[in-house]
Amino acid sequence: MATAELFYKIVNNTDAHSDSEHIRVYVDSNPSIPDRTAAILHGGKDPLPAMRESLKKLISCGADCIAIPCNTAYYFAEILEQESSVPILNMPAISSAECARRFSGAKAGILATDGTLAAGIYQTALKGAGVDYVLPDKFQQEAVMRVIYDGVKAGNAPESYRQDMEAAVEGMAKRGAEVFILGCTELPIAVKELKLQIPYIDSLEELARAAVKFCGAELK
Amino acid sequence: MATAELFYKIVNNTDAHSDSEHIRVYVDSNPSIPDRTAAILHGGKDPLPAMRESLKKLISCGADCIAIPCNTAYYFAEILEQESSVPILNMPAISSAECARRFSGAKAGILATDGTLAAGIYQTALKGAGVDYVLPDKFQQEAVMRVIYDGVKAGNAPESYRQDMEAAVEGMAKRGAEVFILGCTELPIAVKELKLQIPYIDSLEELARAAVKFCGAELK
Repeated sequence: MATAELFYKIVNNTDAHSDSEHIRVYVDSNPSIPDRTAAILHGGKDPLPAMRESLKKLISCGADCIAIPCNTAYYFAEILEQESSVPILNMPAISSAECARRFSGAKAGILATDGTLAAGIYQTALKGAGVDYVLPDKFQQEAVMRVIYDGVKAGNAPESYRQDMEAAVEGMAKRGAEVFILGCTELPIAVKELKLQIPYIDSLEELARAAVKFCGAELK
Repeated sequence: MATAELFYKIVNNTDAHSDSEHIRVYVDSNPSIPDRTAAILHGGKDPLPAMRESLKKLISCGADCIAIPCNTAYYFAEILEQESSVPILNMPAISSAECARRFSGAKAGILATDGTLAAGIYQTALKGAGVDYVLPDKFQQEAVMRVIYDGVKAGNAPESYRQDMEAAVEGMAKRGAEVFILGCTELPIAVKELKLQIPYIDSLEELARAAVKFCGAELK
């Protein structure tokens, strides 16, 4: 679903008045890529070989840049980048820079998977962009994981995860978060479905915009 | 946008409880494929070479079947099929069979591009499924074309094409249409955006469901 959303956002963020003003998009949506969080935290199956295979397919189709709609996957991006003949757009770095630009001086709350948090992906990216951040406590993080895995990924109804999502966001706001980094690509889907009114950076949206810009099309 | 919608509908129509229960999807969204209606009606540039190139790319990625989210393109599908080592799912035939099943005995109004109508794509497919149909008159068809090209494809706001869409649908209903074949992949987007309450067959939805079924995943 995150891959479909990224594709949708690429089309929607392009200022096109006919088919031909859109960019060409190749997709390899491989749902069998081993879970990234499980690989980072519990010695789960290595996702790198499958990611490498996708990368090769997309480059051989003719892709000029790569966009990976999974924040946790950026733990492996440095290795992939060394093997790739085209640039991999760095979703965490792009999102953090956009947070600094749009919410200058605000403290960011990081909403992400256990894997993304443990790997320090957004802590490093936000630090690089000069943005202060708040991490969820243990209970807030458990709620976030339920939203991602039992809610969105499992295709369950939004109301089944509303309480968890609101508890995480409200708890982190009390501890200083002024803007939320939706640092897992399932979370913008949750925010949209729940119609939550919070200031946020949608990492998937920023990645889509970066891809449109990279490919030389007009941004909306 | 139609390609993004098809991908989204494939994910949404799969009864999956984790990533790995989804099907693998390869996409080549090539917005530079010459306009199919222009090619059929006004000797416009031939879209076949570009379609052939996409087909080859998708098959070399590993696709087991092909789904083309453009009804007008099925004018060229017979030629492509002869060259393809994997089946091309026939969206007009699949949609017509579904119309016969769900709206047994009802007369279908065909909403499609000038090219699709002139090529008789849905007339032939509906006849094959034993479904009677009504065609739009000249003014209704002009309204449908404005919805597709000046409305959805141009990315304009739904309210800008509401009057045209309603005029076409109401006019055809008066002439006997009891169910509408949304026989252009931009039209389900229009119906959804306008929240129109009409009985219809969404050809893109039927194509998505056929792809999920073909690939052996569980349908919702």
